[in-house]
Amino acid sequence: MHTTFERLRELLAEIHDLSAAMSLLEWDMEVMMPPKGAVARGAQLATLAAIRHRLQTSPELARLLDDLARRTTDSDEARLVAEARHDYERATKLPESFVRRFAEAQSAGCNAWLGAKANSDFAAFRPHLETLLELAREATGHYGYEGSPYNALLDNFERGMRAERLRPLLADLAARQKQLVARIVERQAPRDDAWMEGTWDIVAQRAFSLRVLADMGYDLDAGRLDTAPHPFCTHFDIQDVRITTRYDERDPFSALFSTMHEAGHALYDQGFDPAWNRTPLADAPSLGIHECNSRMWENIVGRSEAFWTHYLPVLREHFPGRLDGVSVGQVLGVVNRVAPSLIRVESDECTYNLHVIARFELEMDLIEGRLAVADLPEAWNARYREYLGIEVPDDAHGCLQDVHWSHGMFGYFPTYTLGNLYAAQVFETACAEMPTLWDDIAAGRLLPLREWLRTKIHLVGRRRMAPDIVRSITGSEPAADAFLAYLERKFGAA
Amino acid sequence: MHTTFERLRELLAEIHDLSAAMSLLEWDMEVMMPPKGAVARGAQLATLAAIRHRLQTSPELARLLDDLARRTTDSDEARLVAEARHDYERATKLPESFVRRFAEAQSAGCNAWLGAKANSDFAAFRPHLETLLELAREATGHYGYEGSPYNALLDNFERGMRAERLRPLLADLAARQKQLVARIVERQAPRDDAWMEGTWDIVAQRAFSLRVLADMGYDLDAGRLDTAPHPFCTHFDIQDVRITTRYDERDPFSALFSTMHEAGHALYDQGFDPAWNRTPLADAPSLGIHECNSRMWENIVGRSEAFWTHYLPVLREHFPGRLDGVSVGQVLGVVNRVAPSLIRVESDECTYNLHVIARFELEMDLIEGRLAVADLPEAWNARYREYLGIEVPDDAHGCLQDVHWSHGMFGYFPTYTLGNLYAAQVFETACAEMPTLWDDIAAGRLLPLREWLRTKIHLVGRRRMAPDIVRSITGSEPAADAFLAYLERKFGAA
Repeated sequence: MHTTFERLRELLAEIHDLSAAMSLLEWDMEVMMPPKGAVARGAQLATLAAIRHRLQTSPELARLLDDLARRTTDSDEARLVAEARHDYERATKLPESFVRRFAEAQSAGCNAWLGAKANSDFAAFRPHLETLLELAREATGHYGYEGSPYNALLDNFERGMRAERLRPLLADLAARQKQLVARIVERQAPRDDAWMEGTWDIVAQRAFSLRVLADMGYDLDAGRLDTAPHPFCTHFDIQDVRITTRYDERDPFSALFSTMHEAGHALYDQGFDPAWNRTPLADAPSLGIHECNSRMWENIVGRSEAFWTHYLPVLREHFPGRLDGVSVGQVLGVVNRVAPSLIRVESDECTYNLHVIARFELEMDLIEGRLAVADLPEAWNARYREYLGIEVPDDAHGCLQDVHWSHGMFGYFPTYTLGNLYAAQVFETACAEMPTLWDDIAAGRLLPLREWLRTKIHLVGRRRMAPDIVRSITGSEPAADAFLAYLERKFGAA
Repeated sequence: MHTTFERLRELLAEIHDLSAAMSLLEWDMEVMMPPKGAVARGAQLATLAAIRHRLQTSPELARLLDDLARRTTDSDEARLVAEARHDYERATKLPESFVRRFAEAQSAGCNAWLGAKANSDFAAFRPHLETLLELAREATGHYGYEGSPYNALLDNFERGMRAERLRPLLADLAARQKQLVARIVERQAPRDDAWMEGTWDIVAQRAFSLRVLADMGYDLDAGRLDTAPHPFCTHFDIQDVRITTRYDERDPFSALFSTMHEAGHALYDQGFDPAWNRTPLADAPSLGIHECNSRMWENIVGRSEAFWTHYLPVLREHFPGRLDGVSVGQVLGVVNRVAPSLIRVESDECTYNLHVIARFELEMDLIEGRLAVADLPEAWNARYREYLGIEVPDDAHGCLQDVHWSHGMFGYFPTYTLGNLYAAQVFETACAEMPTLWDDIAAGRLLPLREWLRTKIHLVGRRRMAPDIVRSITGSEPAADAFLAYLERKFGAA
C-alpha cells in the first residue's frame, strides 16, 4: 500500500515540477526575457507541454489510480487519489492531435489579436476567433457535458459551478447592479483630485507597496515583486511565489492596488498545506476562489476607510510634503470613484461585474451557437449600451480589449465575478468571527485576516471545491446578496 | 530518408528544449530566485534531469541513429548523426542508479563545501570529497578509457584532448611561466594606484560596460546583463544568451573585465549556425575553445594598450573629473599588475595558469590513486609553495576555494589553461590575417574580430573538435609557445 501511494506521489511530483518549470518560463517571458527570445521560448513551452501531457496520461499513472481507488481509506489520501483521477481523466479526454491543433491556433490567435487590437481591426482577428471557437466547441465534445456545452469549459476554471446556475445568478446581479450604479453616479460628489497632479516617484511607490506587502504577511524571502505590462501572480512552489505590478507616475494608487490584488493571490499560494506540496492538493480548486482572495485584499480591505486611516500617514512618509492637506475622505473619493467606462481592467468596483457579465452572456451565446463570430462586435456594443450606458467607439475599446478569447479561453470570465461574490460572503463571516477585524485593519494589523484565510481557505487546497468552501465558511450557497449589500453600504450613501 | 532525419531532429530538439529549461532554472536560481525557493528548485532540476536522461537514452533515438548512420551522406547531417550518437553513448553508459547517487552526492557535497569553506574546515568536507572522488573513479569505469582513467573525465569537458598529452604540456608551461613571473615581479615598477581611491558609482560602471558590450557586437535584444555572486554566461537559444557580472565600488575595472569575459562566451553562443539550432551542432565542442573566446576578449583585447587608448577617454566620460590626470600607462599598470596570490579567480594573467596547473596535477594524482583525499591540503600547500612561492594560511584560501570538486567535476580545470593557450594561438593568426586589427581596436572598432571569430569558430559549432579547430585556424597543434611569446611581449619588458 505505502509503496503504491509513494509511487503515485513521485509521478505527481514529476508532473508538478514540469508545470513549475513551465511557469518559470512564462514568468521569465513576461518579466525578464529579451525580445528576440520569444520564438525559442514558444518552442520550449510546447515541448514541455507535450512531455507533461505524456506523463499526465501515462498507463502507469492509470494503473496506480485504479489500484489506489479500491484500497485507500485515509481521507486526505483518498482525496488526492480522486483529484489525480480527475486530472488524469481531463488530460486523456483530449486527443494528442487536438492538443497540438489547439496550441497552434492559440499561438496564431494570440499573434493575430495583438495586431488586430493595435489597429482596431476585428476583421483580421475574426478567422482566428472562428477557429478557436470551433476548437472550444470540439473540446466540449471530447470532455462531454450535461446541460449546456458551456459546462465542459467552465469546468477548466470553476469546477462545481454550472451554466444553468450562473445564468440567472448573473442576470439578476446585472439588473440590480445597473440600478445601483445609476443611483451612485447621480448622487456622487464632484471630482476632487487636483491634489494628485504632478509625478509620483516610482521608487517611493515601490517602497510603499513593499511596506503594505510586509504588513499583509507576504514573505519576500519566498517571493519577488517585479514589473510587467500585465500584473500577475505565479508560483513554482509554496516557497517561491512571485508577483508583478505596473507603475503609473501620475497615480500613486494604481500600482498599490494591483500589488495588493496579486499579493492576495500570492498569500493563497504561499499558504497551501506543505504536507501536500508537489501534489494537486496544494493548489486552489478554482479561479473564482483565488479571485475571492485577491479582490478581498484589493477592494474590501485596500479601498476601505479603515485601511487609509492607517496607511495615509504611511503614504505621507513616503512622499514628504505631497499629502499634507489631503484627508482620508479625499483619498477614498479618488480610489472609490464610480464611472461607467469602456475598459474592464481599468473599471471601478461598482461597474466591474457589468463588464464581466456582458462577456459571460456573449460567450454563452457563442458556445451554444446563438451568436456568430461575425456578429460579435455589434452584440458587444449593444451589451455595453444596455449594461453600462455607453457607446463603444471602436473594437479596440470593445470586443478586442481582452486577451482571453485569443487564447481560446472560453468559460474564464465569470470567475472574476464569482470572486467578487465569494469575497463579500466570506468577508462577512470573517467580520462576524473576528469582531475587531476593522479595528485591526485601521491599526495596520493585517495578519489576523491572513491567518483566518489561511485556515479557512489556503490550507484546504483542493480538498474541497469552491462552492463547498464558501458553504462551509458562510453556511450559504454562492450568491449575490452579500456583495450587493457590501456595495450598498460602501457606496449607497455617497 | 527525409522523415527519419526530421524525426531525429524532433527528438534532439526535445532534449535541447529540456536543457534550455534547466539552464533557465539555474540562471534564475543564481540571479532572481528568493532564498526559500532553493529546495524546490533542486527538486525541479532533478526531475528535469531524469526526464532528459530518459529521452537521451530512448530506444527510438537509438534506432534512428543506427538507421541514419548507414544512410546519411550529406556531411553536416552525417556530423549531426555522429555527435548525437556520441551523446547517446555517453548518456547510456551511466546507469540510472549511478546518475541518482551522483546527483545526491553532488547536492550533499555542495552544501557541505559551503559550510566547510566558510569555516575553513576541511575535515567537514573530506568525507564528501571522498565519496565524490570514488564516484568519479566509478564513472571512469562506466565510460571506459584508454591510458589514464583521467581521460574518461576529461572527455566531458575537452573532447579530443588526452591526459598523456596534457601532462608534459602543462608541466613544461608551469616551469617556463614560473621563471617568467619571477623575472617580471623583480623588474616591475612600484605600485601606482592612489588615483583609484574612493568609490566608483555602479550605475556608471554598468553604463560603461554596456557601451563596451555594444561595441563588441553583443546583441542585448537577444541577451541581458545582470548581477550574480559568481559571474557566468548561459543560453537557452541563439537568440537568448545572458551574462552576469559583479560590481566592486572600489574598483572600476573588475566588473568590466568579468563582463568582457562573459561576453566573449556570449558572442560564441549568439554565433552558432541558426540552420542547426536546437541540435548538438549548435554548441561548442569543448570548454577550452569556449574559454579561448572569453579570455581573448578579457585579456588579450581588454588589457591591451590599444583598447585603453580608445576606452580611457570613454571611461572619463562616464566618471567626469575622476580620471583627468590618469594616463593609459597608469591604467595598464593597474590592470596588468603581476603578483603571485592565493585565489585563482582574483589572480593576474601571468600567474593564472600556475593555479590551474597545480589543480590539474593534484586531480590527476587523486584520480590515478597516488594521492588520498586526507593528504590533499598538504599536497595543495606544497604545490602553491613550489609554483607561486607563497604559503597558504588556511584551507579556505587553499584547497577549499573552488566549487568544482564539490560538484564532482574532475577534469574541468585544465580547460581554463587550454583556453589561454588556444586564445594566444588563434589571436596570432587573427593578427596575421587582419593586419589592421590592433588599429581597429585602438579606434574602438571591435566588430572585425567578432566577425572573424564567428566565421572561424562560432559557426563551426560541434562540427569539429577543439584541437581540430585550432589546427585548422593556425596550422599548429595546441601548444604553449604562442601564449608564452604573448606574455613575453606584454610583460617581458616591464
